[in-house]
Amino acid sequence: MIIRMRAGAESGDVDFVVARLRSLGLSAHLSFDGDSALIGLSGPVDAVPVGVIQRWRGVERVLPTNRAYRLASTELRPERTEVRVGDVAVGRDVVVIAGPCSVEGRDQVLRAADGVKKAGATMLRGGAFKPRTSPYSFQGLAEEGLKYLAEAREETGLAVVTEVMAPEFVPLVSDYADVLQIGARNVQNFALLAAVGHSEKPVLLKRGMMSTIEEWLLSAEYILSAGNPNVILCERGIRTFETTTRNTLDISAVPAVQELSHLPMLVDPSHSTGKRSLVTAVSRAAVAAGADGLLIECHPDPDNAQSDGYQSITPAQLADLIGQCRAVAEAVGRNIA
Amino acid sequence: MIIRMRAGAESGDVDFVVARLRSLGLSAHLSFDGDSALIGLSGPVDAVPVGVIQRWRGVERVLPTNRAYRLASTELRPERTEVRVGDVAVGRDVVVIAGPCSVEGRDQVLRAADGVKKAGATMLRGGAFKPRTSPYSFQGLAEEGLKYLAEAREETGLAVVTEVMAPEFVPLVSDYADVLQIGARNVQNFALLAAVGHSEKPVLLKRGMMSTIEEWLLSAEYILSAGNPNVILCERGIRTFETTTRNTLDISAVPAVQELSHLPMLVDPSHSTGKRSLVTAVSRAAVAAGADGLLIECHPDPDNAQSDGYQSITPAQLADLIGQCRAVAEAVGRNIA
Amino acid sequence: MIIRMRAGAESGDVDFVVARLRSLGLSAHLSFDGDSALIGLSGPVDAVPVGVIQRWRGVERVLPTNRAYRLASTELRPERTEVRVGDVAVGRDVVVIAGPCSVEGRDQVLRAADGVKKAGATMLRGGAFKPRTSPYSFQGLAEEGLKYLAEAREETGLAVVTEVMAPEFVPLVSDYADVLQIGARNVQNFALLAAVGHSEKPVLLKRGMMSTIEEWLLSAEYILSAGNPNVILCERGIRTFETTTRNTLDISAVPAVQELSHLPMLVDPSHSTGKRSLVTAVSRAAVAAGADGLLIECHPDPDNAQSDGYQSITPAQLADLIGQCRAVAEAVGRNIA
Amino acid sequence: MIIRMRAGAESGDVDFVVARLRSLGLSAHLSFDGDSALIGLSGPVDAVPVGVIQRWRGVERVLPTNRAYRLASTELRPERTEVRVGDVAVGRDVVVIAGPCSVEGRDQVLRAADGVKKAGATMLRGGAFKPRTSPYSFQGLAEEGLKYLAEAREETGLAVVTEVMAPEFVPLVSDYADVLQIGARNVQNFALLAAVGHSEKPVLLKRGMMSTIEEWLLSAEYILSAGNPNVILCERGIRTFETTTRNTLDISAVPAVQELSHLPMLVDPSHSTGKRSLVTAVSRAAVAAGADGLLIECHPDPDNAQSDGYQSITPAQLADLIGQCRAVAEAVGRNIA
Repeated sequence: MIIRMRAGAESGDVDFVVARLRSLGLSAHLSFDGDSALIGLSGPVDAVPVGVIQRWRGVERVLPTNRAYRLASTELRPERTEVRVGDVAVGRDVVVIAGPCSVEGRDQVLRAADGVKKAGATMLRGGAFKPRTSPYSFQGLAEEGLKYLAEAREETGLAVVTEVMAPEFVPLVSDYADVLQIGARNVQNFALLAAVGHSEKPVLLKRGMMSTIEEWLLSAEYILSAGNPNVILCERGIRTFETTTRNTLDISAVPAVQELSHLPMLVDPSHSTGKRSLVTAVSRAAVAAGADGLLIECHPDPDNAQSDGYQSITPAQLADLIGQCRAVAEAVGRNIA
Repeated sequence: MIIRMRAGAESGDVDFVVARLRSLGLSAHLSFDGDSALIGLSGPVDAVPVGVIQRWRGVERVLPTNRAYRLASTELRPERTEVRVGDVAVGRDVVVIAGPCSVEGRDQVLRAADGVKKAGATMLRGGAFKPRTSPYSFQGLAEEGLKYLAEAREETGLAVVTEVMAPEFVPLVSDYADVLQIGARNVQNFALLAAVGHSEKPVLLKRGMMSTIEEWLLSAEYILSAGNPNVILCERGIRTFETTTRNTLDISAVPAVQELSHLPMLVDPSHSTGKRSLVTAVSRAAVAAGADGLLIECHPDPDNAQSDGYQSITPAQLADLIGQCRAVAEAVGRNIA
Repeated sequence: MIIRMRAGAESGDVDFVVARLRSLGLSAHLSFDGDSALIGLSGPVDAVPVGVIQRWRGVERVLPTNRAYRLASTELRPERTEVRVGDVAVGRDVVVIAGPCSVEGRDQVLRAADGVKKAGATMLRGGAFKPRTSPYSFQGLAEEGLKYLAEAREETGLAVVTEVMAPEFVPLVSDYADVLQIGARNVQNFALLAAVGHSEKPVLLKRGMMSTIEEWLLSAEYILSAGNPNVILCERGIRTFETTTRNTLDISAVPAVQELSHLPMLVDPSHSTGKRSLVTAVSRAAVAAGADGLLIECHPDPDNAQSDGYQSITPAQLADLIGQCRAVAEAVGRNIA
Repeated sequence: MIIRMRAGAESGDVDFVVARLRSLGLSAHLSFDGDSALIGLSGPVDAVPVGVIQRWRGVERVLPTNRAYRLASTELRPERTEVRVGDVAVGRDVVVIAGPCSVEGRDQVLRAADGVKKAGATMLRGGAFKPRTSPYSFQGLAEEGLKYLAEAREETGLAVVTEVMAPEFVPLVSDYADVLQIGARNVQNFALLAAVGHSEKPVLLKRGMMSTIEEWLLSAEYILSAGNPNVILCERGIRTFETTTRNTLDISAVPAVQELSHLPMLVDPSHSTGKRSLVTAVSRAAVAAGADGLLIECHPDPDNAQSDGYQSITPAQLADLIGQCRAVAEAVGRNIA
């Protein structure tokens, strides 16, 4: 159950409501949706005197909820959320975020940025901190990589999306990035979710390879309930028995999540397929299903990439992909940003 | 390794080649692609004297193969296969096969057929023999249901797709149906695959909920190698840990299978999602990914259907779905049949 | 809901009860547990006048049930079932069923039978009809193989377990075998389940690689409800993302199924691990968990087996395995048969 | 490829070898196994002049490796590792680590500790920092909980195992705990793995619910290669389609991991089954399979536990479990610590 206070309700009224609810034996969790305070309740909610509460000062309405997540839910906020990144509104037109898996050096990232810009991408992606299964694999250029990404932004005007892997690095990555990416392996790294939740930067939250949709939305809820409303979801494939593709893209998650949550939803066709030749067809499918954007690995020289080359496409292939996706977007009443 | 004999090669030449290969310690399996005999080899193929064989009378060419399936493979036949069902060529324009999960009675199936016809469907589906997890669930009307389906075809002109569940029923079902469907649970019922392989009817082969793509194509190979070239594949979702949807539609399988096989490929958005509200978005995605058609559960009164009502749409919703998919099909250079 | 009639109730009383229940709008399904008729009900059972029914002539008791399966359930029959195979009672002492994956020839199967007998096995397994993923793989010796198995039984006294793959072959296989095996791929081949359900032979029903426990018990219910009470379950691993082993043995299914069902439960450590070196440790675990027996691939010359050699052990290894399992069985209060 | 230097080799010799290998274009990673330096190589290792290297000063031997992990591998260290925790050697006798899911208060943890001690457990487990899927669930008592655990150790003499969830908390948790637990959700939280790798405390590393065995061992390798050799593995079930149990315990992983790695290996029957009534049978199976210990949720009043009560057993049930496992351990030649 959620109590929604009126926009601009006085803090004394909010405090009164919270205190009274707690005196009823309920656990009350305070968060904000713009100017409105939201009070999430758990405990013996069946016994809550809804009619009485609705008459308390400052209360707008009392919402029952059947879902474990609240701030992420369409029950609380039926209208779609748009997350601003510079002058782009993620959730309105379809965005294409493209770039290399890893930042390998200054020249490579500048060439990649130039290539994806010319191909029509909306933002630049690239990893400076790389989560690698093996400790012996290339772990990324760290701050040096962030600097190159920032330089690429200067040159192209593309906003930068890059991963942050530990709470202690949130301030550093925030100095350079426009969007903080939480990778699939960290989807239940709750300390990290809280850390980006205390930031004001938009967060791109990938689904874990083992996350159910509910778990994923609860991970989003960690960020939202810490105070950061700017969450962008990204489906990237789940782990199944099938080995033809690297993961299994859960395309049905696109409309399923849009029924459950107001947050914008992207699709990553690169990690989900793991195979260059499948990326374009899967991108078309994602746009047709209603995705708000794509996150694509694109490298100036995929065959010599330090990581994930087999799933990266060239800038020329990206331009073709965007052209095909533009036609599909228009067929479903959307534009490419 | 496959030896492809020239079209119309004399049977004596074919017999000679088979006998000589067997004398080399190889296992030779004979099948036909139209007028051309194909001799599939297994065993110590590395030692095969390719240059010598190519000079034997009637041999057209010797094909190496890395894939366990042969007749289903693009290695053997790079051009796309079209399967004729009446005057429809499955594999050319995008087909929409729609109808109720179960044939429940004469009136229901005639109304359903009329509804899907008016909505723009290309063929009618409906189950007379129903594979049900529980022995206590409705098992279908059997031959009575087949008769109603045939009557619906008379009235609407729509070809009929219906499931066959055991080898002994292949002749009976063939008397009424235009396409024999093999359900997901029977994808490795090898006796049944052989039985429909000896038929001349087109076969719609669903992917098993636990089938890898390779296993599925090998199941197709059972049908093809028994002599029936008219195989239509249908992705219908695989079983994973996710429970929001009934199964997880493997959308990447559409382009992945098209790289591996020349057979037409449909998608079933009803069983894969299990949820009416997701069917249209997933159908659009399938068409955008390049699927050759859709298999959709449509019932005149879904909420009172005897099975699968929660995933069935109404004829009015089907008409809307087809309209949306037509726009997507055109965006990717296809038409709806 | 199940109505249990008194042992030996007159058929007129049974018919009366069935007819009255149907007149109440319920679906009534008749089956037998020894001399007692069981009437399974589906439909609007909440409205059933239980108190009234309990007074009808011949009714012993009315059982509510929350489970989709009935005859397989401990709700109906709390005591453990023992299935007789010759003078062995499966479900009492721990049985070891061992032998080659495929019957490859007379000599091989006689040597295998002699080897497993000397090693201490309780029964002989071996495939004459082989379900193979590829149509080009060795498909078994069919009736010739059955004859060799019968000859091996003559020589060793070991009862024979072998697979039947299609309804039409149930009579043939029954002529030679003591136990009819239903393989994992046929767990939802409902026509085959019904066919062995109409037989009187004991049936060894493997779990499908994607079967939930409930689906598996419902497959057992198909056999039981067709009239054959002699069902032995066999867990053989499920399909997961892990590739170190061929399948993932669901060891928790042993106690979980024993809570739900009274049927005896074996474990197949060979198919679940797919790796010879793991078979003994997993066999010990199965016995410790409470399994009623083991189904093990054992070949006189595993490295030259025509199928599954990498997971087959030698008779000498089997003797060692049985010795280790005997110690574990005794530790949990059981004996090896 | 790994270069093993002689125990006590001079650091100048180690530096020389590393520098020379890097000059050959290889990536050389230095770590230690007791007094012996190990130099892991990646890159073009096929071209490495093995014979020459073996003559360099201080080199003991050059080991080829086919596995991605090295320090965790039996290729490098065939003898089993024992990890000391106080006077217990994990990897020698079978250990039983038991206690509540969460530390809920001083009284609860002291009662739990007393109960598990009397039941025969070897160590105490309990969560002060709790990774919870929902931000609204009880998150643990944090440092207050650690203090109660330390007090319980004072009273019972049992070593304490507790989870650490973020790098910044490693020093704090190390002040109170004897073993640092890394939970399933953090198995690829590489910053956290590195942080505990720089600690000297033994680490209990749970398998992720979607970790392959290789990925899990590579996570162990992160800890080992950071300098901490005291890693204890714990299988806790993987995520599959089956819903009867909370997870699917991969019992075959016990012998499979023991073939691949020298690290001790525990099993958690509580999280894997999620069901109290299955815990004892699965514990017996784990010991029979060769596990080095058990990690069990035990609560003085499971039905009123704040988390995971449905899978917790009572101290009396634990005593019975340990008795049963003792008999199984003896049957396989082990003792309970």
